[in-house]
Parts: sequence; C-alpha cells; structure tokens
Amino acid sequence: MRLISAQEVSKHNKREDCWVIIHGKVYDLTKFLPEHPGGERIILKQAGKDGTAAFDQIHPLDIIKQYLPPEAFLGEIDPATVVKTAKVETEEDKRRRLAIEKKPALSEMLNLYDFEAVASQVLTAEAWAYYSSGAEDEITLRENHNAFHRIWLRPRVMRNVLNVDSSTKILGHHSSFPLYITATALGKLGHPEGEVVLTRASYKQKIIQMIPTLASCSLDEMISARGEGQIQFFQLYVNSDKNITKKIVQAAEEKGCKALFITVDAPQLGRREKDMRVKFVDAPPDVQGEHEIRRDRGAALAISKFIDPSLNWDDLKWFMSITSMPIVLKGIQTSEDAILAAKYGCKGIVLSNHGGRQLDFARSAIEILPEVVDSLKKEGLLDSIEIYVDGGIRRGTDIFKAIALGAKAVGIGRPMLYAMSSYGQEGVEHALQLLKDELEMVMRLMGVNTLADIRPEMVDIKNLKDHNFVPKDYLFSNVYDKPIPRRSKL
Amino acid sequence: MRLISAQEVSKHNKREDCWVIIHGKVYDLTKFLPEHPGGERIILKQAGKDGTAAFDQIHPLDIIKQYLPPEAFLGEIDPATVVKTAKVETEEDKRRRLAIEKKPALSEMLNLYDFEAVASQVLTAEAWAYYSSGAEDEITLRENHNAFHRIWLRPRVMRNVLNVDSSTKILGHHSSFPLYITATALGKLGHPEGEVVLTRASYKQKIIQMIPTLASCSLDEMISARGEGQIQFFQLYVNSDKNITKKIVQAAEEKGCKALFITVDAPQLGRREKDMRVKFVDAPPDVQGEHEIRRDRGAALAISKFIDPSLNWDDLKWFMSITSMPIVLKGIQTSEDAILAAKYGCKGIVLSNHGGRQLDFARSAIEILPEVVDSLKKEGLLDSIEIYVDGGIRRGTDIFKAIALGAKAVGIGRPMLYAMSSYGQEGVEHALQLLKDELEMVMRLMGVNTLADIRPEMVDIKNLKDHNFVPKDYLFSNVYDKPIPRRSKL
Amino acid sequence: MRLISAQEVSKHNKREDCWVIIHGKVYDLTKFLPEHPGGERIILKQAGKDGTAAFDQIHPLDIIKQYLPPEAFLGEIDPATVVKTAKVETEEDKRRRLAIEKKPALSEMLNLYDFEAVASQVLTAEAWAYYSSGAEDEITLRENHNAFHRIWLRPRVMRNVLNVDSSTKILGHHSSFPLYITATALGKLGHPEGEVVLTRASYKQKIIQMIPTLASCSLDEMISARGEGQIQFFQLYVNSDKNITKKIVQAAEEKGCKALFITVDAPQLGRREKDMRVKFVDAPPDVQGEHEIRRDRGAALAISKFIDPSLNWDDLKWFMSITSMPIVLKGIQTSEDAILAAKYGCKGIVLSNHGGRQLDFARSAIEILPEVVDSLKKEGLLDSIEIYVDGGIRRGTDIFKAIALGAKAVGIGRPMLYAMSSYGQEGVEHALQLLKDELEMVMRLMGVNTLADIRPEMVDIKNLKDHNFVPKDYLFSNVYDKPIPRRSKL
Amino acid sequence: MRLISAQEVSKHNKREDCWVIIHGKVYDLTKFLPEHPGGERIILKQAGKDGTAAFDQIHPLDIIKQYLPPEAFLGEIDPATVVKTAKVETEEDKRRRLAIEKKPALSEMLNLYDFEAVASQVLTAEAWAYYSSGAEDEITLRENHNAFHRIWLRPRVMRNVLNVDSSTKILGHHSSFPLYITATALGKLGHPEGEVVLTRASYKQKIIQMIPTLASCSLDEMISARGEGQIQFFQLYVNSDKNITKKIVQAAEEKGCKALFITVDAPQLGRREKDMRVKFVDAPPDVQGEHEIRRDRGAALAISKFIDPSLNWDDLKWFMSITSMPIVLKGIQTSEDAILAAKYGCKGIVLSNHGGRQLDFARSAIEILPEVVDSLKKEGLLDSIEIYVDGGIRRGTDIFKAIALGAKAVGIGRPMLYAMSSYGQEGVEHALQLLKDELEMVMRLMGVNTLADIRPEMVDIKNLKDHNFVPKDYLFSNVYDKPIPRRSKL
Repeated sequence: MRLISAQEVSKHNKREDCWVIIHGKVYDLTKFLPEHPGGERIILKQAGKDGTAAFDQIHPLDIIKQYLPPEAFLGEIDPATVVKTAKVETEEDKRRRLAIEKKPALSEMLNLYDFEAVASQVLTAEAWAYYSSGAEDEITLRENHNAFHRIWLRPRVMRNVLNVDSSTKILGHHSSFPLYITATALGKLGHPEGEVVLTRASYKQKIIQMIPTLASCSLDEMISARGEGQIQFFQLYVNSDKNITKKIVQAAEEKGCKALFITVDAPQLGRREKDMRVKFVDAPPDVQGEHEIRRDRGAALAISKFIDPSLNWDDLKWFMSITSMPIVLKGIQTSEDAILAAKYGCKGIVLSNHGGRQLDFARSAIEILPEVVDSLKKEGLLDSIEIYVDGGIRRGTDIFKAIALGAKAVGIGRPMLYAMSSYGQEGVEHALQLLKDELEMVMRLMGVNTLADIRPEMVDIKNLKDHNFVPKDYLFSNVYDKPIPRRSKL
Repeated sequence: MRLISAQEVSKHNKREDCWVIIHGKVYDLTKFLPEHPGGERIILKQAGKDGTAAFDQIHPLDIIKQYLPPEAFLGEIDPATVVKTAKVETEEDKRRRLAIEKKPALSEMLNLYDFEAVASQVLTAEAWAYYSSGAEDEITLRENHNAFHRIWLRPRVMRNVLNVDSSTKILGHHSSFPLYITATALGKLGHPEGEVVLTRASYKQKIIQMIPTLASCSLDEMISARGEGQIQFFQLYVNSDKNITKKIVQAAEEKGCKALFITVDAPQLGRREKDMRVKFVDAPPDVQGEHEIRRDRGAALAISKFIDPSLNWDDLKWFMSITSMPIVLKGIQTSEDAILAAKYGCKGIVLSNHGGRQLDFARSAIEILPEVVDSLKKEGLLDSIEIYVDGGIRRGTDIFKAIALGAKAVGIGRPMLYAMSSYGQEGVEHALQLLKDELEMVMRLMGVNTLADIRPEMVDIKNLKDHNFVPKDYLFSNVYDKPIPRRSKL
Repeated sequence: MRLISAQEVSKHNKREDCWVIIHGKVYDLTKFLPEHPGGERIILKQAGKDGTAAFDQIHPLDIIKQYLPPEAFLGEIDPATVVKTAKVETEEDKRRRLAIEKKPALSEMLNLYDFEAVASQVLTAEAWAYYSSGAEDEITLRENHNAFHRIWLRPRVMRNVLNVDSSTKILGHHSSFPLYITATALGKLGHPEGEVVLTRASYKQKIIQMIPTLASCSLDEMISARGEGQIQFFQLYVNSDKNITKKIVQAAEEKGCKALFITVDAPQLGRREKDMRVKFVDAPPDVQGEHEIRRDRGAALAISKFIDPSLNWDDLKWFMSITSMPIVLKGIQTSEDAILAAKYGCKGIVLSNHGGRQLDFARSAIEILPEVVDSLKKEGLLDSIEIYVDGGIRRGTDIFKAIALGAKAVGIGRPMLYAMSSYGQEGVEHALQLLKDELEMVMRLMGVNTLADIRPEMVDIKNLKDHNFVPKDYLFSNVYDKPIPRRSKL
Repeated sequence: MRLISAQEVSKHNKREDCWVIIHGKVYDLTKFLPEHPGGERIILKQAGKDGTAAFDQIHPLDIIKQYLPPEAFLGEIDPATVVKTAKVETEEDKRRRLAIEKKPALSEMLNLYDFEAVASQVLTAEAWAYYSSGAEDEITLRENHNAFHRIWLRPRVMRNVLNVDSSTKILGHHSSFPLYITATALGKLGHPEGEVVLTRASYKQKIIQMIPTLASCSLDEMISARGEGQIQFFQLYVNSDKNITKKIVQAAEEKGCKALFITVDAPQLGRREKDMRVKFVDAPPDVQGEHEIRRDRGAALAISKFIDPSLNWDDLKWFMSITSMPIVLKGIQTSEDAILAAKYGCKGIVLSNHGGRQLDFARSAIEILPEVVDSLKKEGLLDSIEIYVDGGIRRGTDIFKAIALGAKAVGIGRPMLYAMSSYGQEGVEHALQLLKDELEMVMRLMGVNTLADIRPEMVDIKNLKDHNFVPKDYLFSNVYDKPIPRRSKL
C-alpha cells in the first residue's frame, strides 16, 4: 500500500487535477468530477484536502466501491504528515449550538410544525435548504398543503365512538394506522446515524418504512436495523445501466423488502433553487463565471446516468421478470397513467409530485385522487390496485380526508426528517404518535369506529379542484415595485 | 378534626404523593391526579402548597363533594403553621394592572371587537388562552366568522320603518331579540363572580341564558341569581355514569330550567394548542419528557369519564324518560343528523361546531343552515323543530343573516366572556345592547318591521358554500422559508 | 337687546344648563341637546364658551333660524367681557401645518388616490374621520371599489379613434362627460368656503352638481355660486315634518334646481365607527359612562326628526303634487325596487349604498347594475327611466365599465371633497380633468368614439357577482391571536 | 459654420426660448418643445446647457435629422468657452456604484427574477421607472404574470424522454426554442450600447429578435450587428405621416427584416404613473402649476404625430401594397379582432396588452389564447395564421403552457432589458439559456419529446378565466384608513 503525504495531496487542488482524502484513503476524482450527481463544485471545495466529514454527511460507506473505478484509489494518507487544526466555531456554528442548547422539551412539540420550526434552527443551512426546498417558485410545494384546506368535513354525531381502531393493511401488511414513511434522501444531513433512525421509530410505532435508493445509510445498515416482523418497502431510482438496476432490485428482495416502489416522476431532477443558492456560499470565486453555465448543463446529463430518462411502460415487463416483489409506481399524476399502471399489472400507485421538488405547477396528489378513483372505477380496475398519496400531510384531518377519498394509505417524508433532525428517534416516534392521536380524535369526532366506516360523503370537496387562490409568488412580489400615492414630505 | 401543619403538607409535593390545601382543608390528590380533566400538571404545580386561588378560578365550590371520595380529605390546615408571604408583582401582573388602570371607558366600546381587544389585555395569559383558543390550526374558528362575510344583503327601501320590533319566542319563551347566551365553561377565569354575572345581565336585557355543566359557579348559585320571570336553559355534558347524569338533569329541571341542551359534538375534547402551550409555562422540568407523552393519552381517557363517548341516538329515549324538559341537541352539523334529531322527537337543534374548538375543518353553522332547512322541509319536519346557530356572531348583520336563512335564534359565547372579563355585568349589558341596536338598525335599513318580515331573498348566498378562500394557516406560513431573489449585497 | 357677560355664560357649562355663544349671540341649548343630530357631546364641548369656530365648520349660517325656537336666543355677548386668548399650536395643529407647507404641487397629483393621500394629512382628524368613514367593518365601503376590479375589458383595435367625444345628457341636460358631483355633507370641514367650491369647479368642467340637504353652505349660497347655464340637482333628506319638506323642495325648484334626488337608503343613520371614535377624543370624563349608553339610543331617535323613517312608496304621489321637478330615487339596491320606482313614475334611480356609510354588506351599485337593467328590460321599463350609479368610482375605467353595463352616468363624492380639501377649486377641477382624460384615453384604447359605441360585450363580468374574496375584516384580524410554532428561545 | 459661446447658450434657458447643446451642436428647441413625445419638462431640464448625456440615453444618433427642421440647428459650440466641471457623485450615484460593485456573479442568477432584482439596483431611477412601470394601478401588468398561475400541469410519466427537442419555426424561420425577443424602447437607458446587445445575444442563442421603432440604436446599427443567417423582424409604430411610415417600412424590408409587426394597441400612450412620477424629481418649481395641466393634454396630442390614432383595418391593404414582408398585428385582444386579422390576410397575430403599459384591466394574452384558438378554428382560419403571446413570461412552464394552448411562440421583453442592464450581452445569453433549460426540463417532466407532442389536455385551465383574485390595489390600500379596535393605552 502506497503512503501519500498530506503535502502531496494538497498540490492536487484544482479541476484539472483533483485529489481528495476520504477515511484515510486518497482518491483521484478528476475524471469523476463531471459525473458527480451533486455537481463538481461540492467536490472542488475539498480538492487537496480531507473530505471525510463532508462525504459522511451525504453518502453511505459502500458507495465508493459501487461507483468509483479501482484505479481512482491512489493509496493511503501518511498519518504523520497530517496537521491537526483546532476547529474554530463560526457564527453559523454558534447559532446552531445555541439553538440546540435552548431547544424546547420534546413534550412541547404539539404538532408537526413545531418540529419543522426547531429543525430550521438546528440544521445546517445546507441541510435545511436540501430538505425544505421545492421546485422553482415552490407553488406546488405549498399547493400540496393548501389543497387539503379546500376539503371540509361533515361530522356525524350521536354515534358510539368509545372504541376507535385506525389500523389497516398495506399490500397485505399490517400498519397501526394508514401511513408509511416514504423514501427521502440524505438522512445523515439531519442526523449522524441517518435513515436507520427512521427504521427504528417505524418499528416502535408499527408502521412501514420505505427504504430510499439515495439513502446515506447503506442498504445493509437499514436492513439490519429492522425489528422483528417489521416490514420495509424499497424505493428505486432506475439506473440507466440495467445490470446495476437488476443488482439493486434483487438485493432488496433477497434482504426481505416486501414491495418495489419505482419512482417515475424524475427523468430529470427539478430546479430546487433554494438548494442551488446555498451551494454558492463559500464557493471559490474562480469556480464561478462562464464555466459554471456549462457545468449546469453538464449536471443535467450526469444525473441521467443515475436516473434513466428513457424509462417507459415497456420496461415493466422486464422488472416483473427480475423480481417477484409487487411493483408500485411512485409519481403517477393523471387518471390516464393510473389506468395504464393497473393494466400493466402494478399492484399499487402513489399519487405524488415528489413533494413539490420536481415540476412546479403539478397538481397535488389529493386533488388528483378523486379523478383517479373515478376513472379506475369506470374501467373496472379499482379493486386490482391500491392507491396511496403523499405530499402535504401534516395533520390527522389530512389523513382522514385522503382515506375518505379512496386512498389506502398516505406517505410522509419531510416531517419525519425534521423530527429526526431535532429530537432523533424519540422525536420521530413522538411525531408519529401525534399524527395517530390526531387521526383517532378526528375519527371519534367524525363518528366512525374504523377506517372502513369512512365514506366519501363525509368530506365536502366542492372546491377541491379550484385554483382561484394560488400560493404567493414570493420572487415576483419581491421584485415588484409597488406604486405609492404622492404625499406631503413630512 | 385532625389539624395538619403546613410543613407536613409541604413534604407531599410529587406525583407519587400529592397533597394540596383548598379553603383550609388538606386533600390527598395522588389517586385523583390521572382522572383530573384538566390534566395532572396543573395540580402538580400546587403539590404541597395552598391551591385555593388556582382552584377558585376554575371550579364551583361544591365540586369537591361531587367528585372526590371522602377519604381524600385528610384534615384541616393548622393556621398557626402557615407563613404569610407578601405577594410579589410579576411582570405579567404589572402588565395586567396597567391595562386595567388605562382601560377605555365602557362607552368607548363601540362593537364586540373592542371588548375582545380589552379582554386580551386584562385577562391572565391562561384565561385568554382558554377562552380564545380553537382546535388545531383554528381554521374553523375563523371560518365561523368568515362565512358570514360570504352573505350579502339585498335591502328594500321606501318602507315605513318607524317602528321596529326585534323580539321573538324561543321554545315558547319571550326574548327581547333572537339571541341567547350559550354555555361556556370556567367563567371565574375572567371574573371573580363567574357565570352569575351573565345571569344578571341576561335578566336586564330580557334574554335567555343557557347554564353550562362546566360552570365555575355551582348550579344553585346560577339559579339563585335568576331575576323574576327569567328563563334559563341547561346545557349538559353527558357523564358516562348514568346515575350522575340523571341526578344532574333532574336537579336542573327541578330548579326551573326550561330546556335541556345536550352537547353532542364532544365525544372527545379537541386539540386547543394555544391552550396547551400556556400550560407548559412554569411547569417544573421533571414533569416534562417521556412521561408527558403518556400523560397526554391518559388525559383523553380521563375526560371520557366526564363526557361519554358512547352517547348515541338510542340514549334519547332514556333522556325523555327522566325529564319532561324539551330536548335540544347542540352540535348538529349535517342535514342527515338534523333529520334524525327531528325524527327522534327533539324540539330543537343547535347547528354548531363548538366555537371551532373541537374538529378543525368542520364547516360553519351558518353555511350548514340552508342545507338543513331544505332537507327538513323536504321531509315535512321543518315545523316540528326549532333551529339555532352559534359560532362567529359579532354583528347585527350576522343575526339578521341567520334569521333570514331560517334560524329561530342565535347563540353567543366568547364575546360575552370578553365583555364580562373587561367590564363586568355592565359590560355584558352594554355588549348585548350594541347587538340589539345593530340588529334593529339593520332591520330598519333592510326595510322590515318584525322578524317575520325577514325573507330568504333578502340575502345573497351565492358564494356561501364556497371555500376558495381559506383562513390563513399561520403555523405553516410561519415555518415556510420564503424564496428571495439574489441582489447586490449593499 | 340684552347684553350678557362672558363670565355669566361660562357658568352655564353643563348638560342641565348649557349656554353657547355663536357669532356674538348667546343661546340656551339645554333643551336642544338631545335633539342635536350630531349628538350632545359635541355641543357640550362648547358649553359656557364661544362655539363659533366649531359651528362654522359644520353648519350653514341660516340653520339656527330653521331649527332653534326663538326663545333659545338669550341676548348678545358683551364684547368688553371677552378675554382674547392667544391660540396655542397643538401637536396636531403642527402636524397639519407642516403637511400643508410640504404639500406636493398640484401637477404632481396624477390620480384621485394622490388627492386622498394629501387630504388625509391636511384635514383635521375630525374631518378626515367624517369624510372617510364607512359603516361598521367597512366591508361595503371597500367592496364598492373592489367590485370594479372584477370587471375586465375587451378592447377592440384598428378603429379610427382620432376623435373621441365623452359628452352626454343627464335628464336632458348636457354634461361634458358622464359624471356628476353627488351630494355630500359638511363641506366646510374640508374647506372654509364649503360646497360653493364644488359649484364653481363643476361649472368650469361643464358637469352637473347635486346640492346636498346637509350642506354647510346655505342653499342660497350654492345657488348664487352657479355659473351661466350651469345645471344643479337637489338632494333631499325627507324631514318628518311634511311642511318643512315641502318648504325645502319648493325653494329648491324655485331657485332653479332641475331635479329632485330623494335619498331612500337612510331611514336611520349607519354606524360609522371611525367617526364615532374621533368624537370621544377630548370629551370631558363625566360625559362618559352609563349616561352615554342612553344618549346613543337617544341620538337614533333624534335623527328621525331630520330623516323620516316612515317614508314609503305612497309618499311619491305627494311629492309629485308639490313639485314639477323630475324625481329620482337615490339608494335603490335591488331590481324589485328599481321596477317599483319606474312604475311609480320616477325619472331616474341612483344605484347606491350611500358610499358604504349605511348598511355594511350591502352590495355595490356596479354589481347590481346588470340585474337592474335586465329586469327593467323584461318589464319593458328600461326606456322610461335613467340609471346612475355611485360608490367606488376612482378611474376612467370605472366610468367606462358603468356605461358599458347600462348606466347613464356616475356620481362621485368623497374624491371631490379630498381634492377640495387639499387644493381648493383648482384641485377639484384638476381631479375632474384627470377623470375625463382617463375616460377619453380608455375610450380610445377600447376603440370607441362616443358613449353610444360602448357595448356590454366590451366588458367581461363573469366574476362580477362573486364574493369569494371579501375585504379584510381588520377588527377581527386585529384581535385574533395568531398561533405560532414552538422554537428554540434564542 | 457659426461658433456659439456657452455663455450665449446659457441665456436661452426657458420655455419661451430654449437652446440645447447636443454633441457639440447648438439647437433651438423652442418650437419643438410641445411636440416632444417625452414631454417638454425633460428638455427644459437641459435648457441652456449641454444635453448630450441625457440625449444619448434615449435616442439613436440619426433621430435629429429625421424629426428636427434644418433651421433648428444654430451652429457649433465654441469649445474654448466650455467650462469643464468635475462631476460630483450624488447619493443616488453612490448607491448605484456600490450596487454594481457588489453585484452577484452572473452564475448566481438562477432565474429571471434575480436579473430583475439586480437591475432594480443598478439602473438609474429613471430607467427603472421607464422599464418597470405599467398603466395606472398596474393590475394588468401583474395579471399578465398571475394568469399563468391559474394554469396547472398534468404530467405524463413513463415515457422515454432521453431526447428532447424544443426547436420550432416562426413564420418559417428556425428558432432554437419557441421564444423571440420582442420590441422594447429606449435600450440605452439600461446599457450604453443599447439594442445591439440584444441582437448579438439572440444570434448566440439562435432566436429571433424583433427590432423596435423606438430603439435608441438606429436601424442601421441593429442591422449591422446581425450575425450570419440571423433573422430579425421589424416592429412598427404607424406614423400619422404616411410618407414617413412608408420610408420606415421599406427601409426595414430592404435591410433584410423578415416580417412586419404592426403595433395596434397604442392609438394613445397609456398612463404609466410610476414613470410620470420620476419625471417630477428635480423639476424646476416654475415648471409646475397651472401650466402643467395644459401640458399634459398637449402631450397626448403631440404623441399622435408619432402614433397614428386613425389607424384602422382599411389601412392594411395599403401596407400590403408597400411591402412584401408578411404582416403581423401586435396587440390583438379579442377573438373578434383575431378573426378580422386572419380575414384581412395577416400572417400572424400577437395576443398582447403591451406588457400592461396601455389599458389597465385588459385581460392577459394567455387568458385570451384559448378563446382565440377556438373561434379561429370555428371559422376555419386557424391554419392560415400564427398566434404568438407576450406578457408575463418568466419561466419554462409559462412557455409550455402557451404552446399547449395553441401559441406558436412567445415574446419576451422586460426580462431581456433587465439581463442586459445588469450583465450585458452575457447576461442576456444566460437569461435565454435559463429559459431554454427550464423549458426542456418541463418537457421532459411532462413526458414529451418535441413541441408537437404538447397537447391541450396536458394543462388544466379550469380557472384560467376566473378573476376572483385580483392583483392588489396598492394605491387604494395605501390611502385606506384601517379601523382598529379600542385598547388600553399602555
């Protein structure tokens, strides 16, 4: 094994010649730069330096083996040459430290917004931007929430609601209430242990976790964290290389995942501008400018290696040939595609716009739900497929509304990241408990005992499909120069 | 009678061993803690101390006898052992004292909002939170008000309106205008004399008062405060113990209450988060944490002793067997249930969502009113039952609109508490006078002489059932991170 | 003639004994106090003093003779006993003086809002409150403006619009564009010369002025200010005393007024709370309290002497018997009443809600206009009557929209008071010129040459009757306690 | 050549006698003052001085020859008499200098709003006001943007979108994506080189530029800046003098312009009040007052020399006789006029309201588009004419929506001026690249490969024609005096 000095590494600190130390190993990332899904800028910040801390925040340990060719590994760093520097607390570090010290007690978290408020303070700016951002003007991001507010409730009274049972089955598997934790990327940005925290909390609350392709924990770690009898589903970004895709899918099935959720709404990643902005902070000036414009276009191509833009209906046959897991399409947004999914033999669909992170002005899942249910019913396909919705779920009433309109269950993502980031596993459990308590209270106040009692006529959706009121366009408003009347100059 | 020293009491100051002094008597509340409807935290704040002041703010004197077993009474406090401590004025006390000193003259109160503004300043934080809070995001709380704003008026002119008479009959009893004071709990939080203040003001203004189960005055006190010929109705939370329920109902009838209003929208108490937040202030740190989560669930069960979640239509026969008072169901929210109420022989229904304190996204009573009237008419039941609405009434126009759409009368709650809290009985009388004056002005400007002249075609309800505009979700908005365009860093 | 000393007058300074000096004459107003339409408080501020300045701001000189019995006149003040006191400039005086000194040039007034902005600074608080206030929550006040914003334009292009003519005839009288100055009370609050300023400016701009019953100039003054060939209409508040009414109407006709506009929307004055609040400033403390409540009720009765609440359709025959002026009803708000007016022989109607000062939640005139036109057409009455609208007119587009929907002309009130108050006659002329220029520009851009070319299909009124968006309820919002999520206490 | 001294010039500094130095030449502008389209005030600021800098910001060099009679030229300035004065940096200059120094890197511009934000800081107040202002209350200005927000997307998934092609043909000419730079006036206000910057950037991005009549570059300059094979269209304001019009049109054709876009929505210029306000800054006091009122009216007449208000359908025959360029009408706003345009033989129409600068409350082009497409289809004219829309385009989704509803391409104006003003040619190229990238991303996420794949059913326009929500009326809101409840005076 070759030993390389820190001084030697430090010379390779530019785009044309870029070495980085990760966990004591030195890699030449020059050729990998344009392929990096997160963009080259983020690697260039570590060029010639030890990038372990930055790497660990985002990646599972085994990713290097998967994606870097062996020749990129140059040797080990010579520990004797490393100069330890005391870490200086920045203003941002201090702000976060104080926010953590003065954090409210977990018991003061009364709803999911409380968790989000605390998370916005204790997360790094990068993590907050990555988690919270949506596409472009974030109209859809907010519409996902707002759409639920256009549904009103018609509670029935004088019914014996001493006993209420919110449990259900999802693809045949028990869930203590009709909600699963959906796949979200980069858990370690929010918590040092990453996605396994969600695995453990799901187990405690007896709900199902969907494991993400882009987790910062490895698949093995998330599988190992599983409790007895716990159910996990697997979310897949389809890789352009069919062999890689096959390897991933079969590993998931082999390790006990019970369903395959294929993401279909991301042939290209959406523009998350708040996230993009944060990346410019601290960037070396020479990385900016003319070249950057080309880089942006390059990134769009690079990502296409990881997410196949050519994925189409014909590929489903192949998927069914390589796995016996039931297949669910995540990201269906029209009744037309819902019918196709059922006809192609999928066992479920997730009505979803990717949390408002992909296409701005996509409609909310909850708005689409009645049109999907109606058209599946007309085609006689409603019983052959389960429908889930995600996006904007924050309250027990939201879950109730989705069930009333025909969803089998709802998925939840960001709120669990916020709970995890601010209070760890206990936080996630508490957040789930709040949702379950709220749902059961709503059931009681609506006069129902079980999910089967929930009927469409219990919700008023007269205005669900109306978009008279649109989320505020903050960018437009911010640059708009308001007219003001002339006054005396007092 | 055993004499107990203050030092002895002070040792019993924890959850496992909790004594409290109330009006010179020492009680062991350890076993009662988990049953306390208001939660154990509020009692634990008084553990080992004299809790008389806190007790009196909330409870009628006779409640201890009703709910505590005799063995909880340990003996009397030895007065010689009590150390008098001068009360120190806190910042909050000072803020309130000044607010009271600088209170505007009663004559400056031009509308009900003025009373609310003053009340928000002179009430304790706890009282303000308890009175003003609604369920969850308080969408329904505000919708109750907003819905009236979707009703517009079609005034007729050139009619002789020299004389205007706003009086009516409610269940056969005279009322100077079509409004009654509805049941609200914990009056002593706002005024040391509690609900009897409302009794006296109602008498002066010749309107009917509905007496609450959860009053901080005793039933006897409220009955005694009655003026000559004054009418009172009785509001009932149905206790799980039928014997207790029977005792309460028959006492009310015996003491002259003229109708029984059974609350049907509260099989479980709603989540009033502003109220919950206030309870965390000053709580000892050890009460927080993991245990608290369990407590929350416990409270939901505890309350079920006081409000029976199994109450259902079959119980009505039993109620009719134990009382000859006419029965009115308070909290009906659909035409389906309105029809059931009429068929089961109820003499009235209150369209109500409990002032937005129970189920968020329940529709407003005024929105439901036309659908209820229509369906009762279709069933031929409209003449057999009186319809009242409550929630959001603040102006004479609101009352006019309710009457035009078929209500017999409206109920009003919070505004009377605010008037009472800020100006006592005179305040309540003035507030009622304002409403009556406004109503009569509206009648005159609408071209009608009596309530019977008010017709549905005088209101424009084209948009009443539209929910394009929803009350702002402040929690969501508060945590939303608004995008901003890049600018020069000036 | 008896001479009375100032010392003597100063002793009569209370409600039970109230003398006031006006223009050197001493009056005993004790008996008149409860009858004063403006309330007794405003007179009590002058009790025992010289009230000339306050009197002149509001009343025409000849009003004392009309309404005070001769015995109220006690004698003349002895000039030798009057102590001259130097007027001290208050903070409020100073604010106004500076606002006037720093007033923008008249040419900087680009639209009517500019005038309103300046007027809000240069007017006394009392005048601003009186002019600007509307009824209760001022929903209708703002709806009058907003309703125009629900009407959109469908401009036609490629038409020869070199020549544009905006002139019209109103009741047969020429007007340079389809707008008249409507009746507004108390002009001297805004300008020392009062309503005659409007008379002169109307003449310059060749439009018609409607003379108000409650002017602070006398009828004679407004008639004398008339230019050659200038047309004036007369607005009437019907007095309960038919003899007084007859005297007023016949005087108006005799002095050349060309039409009688009878106000029919004010059988009782509306609650203008901003105006009421201002009246409490500086009020002596003893005037407040219990007595005040009674006073409020008294005022409602007192005003009924000046405005007859018994006015009804049968009275029209009598009016037609005492005058040959064409009769127009001002304040019609439904198609039903529009039809009645036509059937009773009226020559015109003003769709109006009294500038939002009477009944809150009355609909806007512009919203009512299409329904009135339609129903008159159906009844075959459209040609027998002219329709005017007022309320909310601020732009040339507003006038165009009214004409397109069938109005003969529009009335404008407050903006003229604001222009008069801030820049006098020149201001009013400039404001009128702006409106006329805007209208002609709109005509050109819409592709029309004359008012007759304006067609209903040029406006899009799809949403005119929608009230999904309601003016903000500031009182409610102000007292609403917004929920906020829990955060770290940084 | 006569030499004139600076002292001599300085004496001619008033309206009645006004000389100005431009590029070393002295002109007597007294007679020209009332004809100046920009108003006389702006010339009077330079009276008796050297106005070269102010002139160059707005005019092409050759304009003097075109519009001033030869006798206005008096002679050359004697250089020896000119006193050089050091330019003092004003507060405003300093603000701009710092804004330019601290400008973000071009790569930080993530969307068009960023450019607008930077432009608002680096432009002079005059330029910002001229570029950004709209007519009157700017309701239409903002509605142009908002209308796109009432259109939602129905994305199809599981389609092979590896390859996406956004190119199209406009009037038969290739464009890399369906967007052209529309005509905007006075480019030198934003960039010293003016419109040629847009010419060069269009070439780089392979899109078409529309050349404006009111450019501050001369036609020759813009033609010369053309790249190889680059296409330019010519926008025409029709001059009242047909000879001038003919000369302009034939020059454009001769120099290679490929289409003639005749502006039809400006028979008179709209009221852009923000722009008008800026003109009052620094104006000498004596220019204000009574005279100014007359001037305003004069300007309306003056402009009619430059833009013919008598332009009408009959003129089209004449246009077709003097040019063989295809004719497109810019500013069509109804289906009626769209049909006329097709019948008269126009090859295209631009649905446009002139960027909200002409008639306030004109509807947005995107709202009109479906009604125009429908009616042309009904008349069988849809294939004979191309439809473009402009106004409010800021995002790739906006372009996609326009294409889905039947537009051939969209025009963009202000955003290009902002990009040019803040970052020059590179800025414009970057802004265009952002739009193209966004459009291609949207196409991929919508599941389409070419523009031909984009179908009407991919957009949800249920609420497109609704105007329940109207842009805020800032002038009205600003002067509205909000009611507030009475509180304690703490």
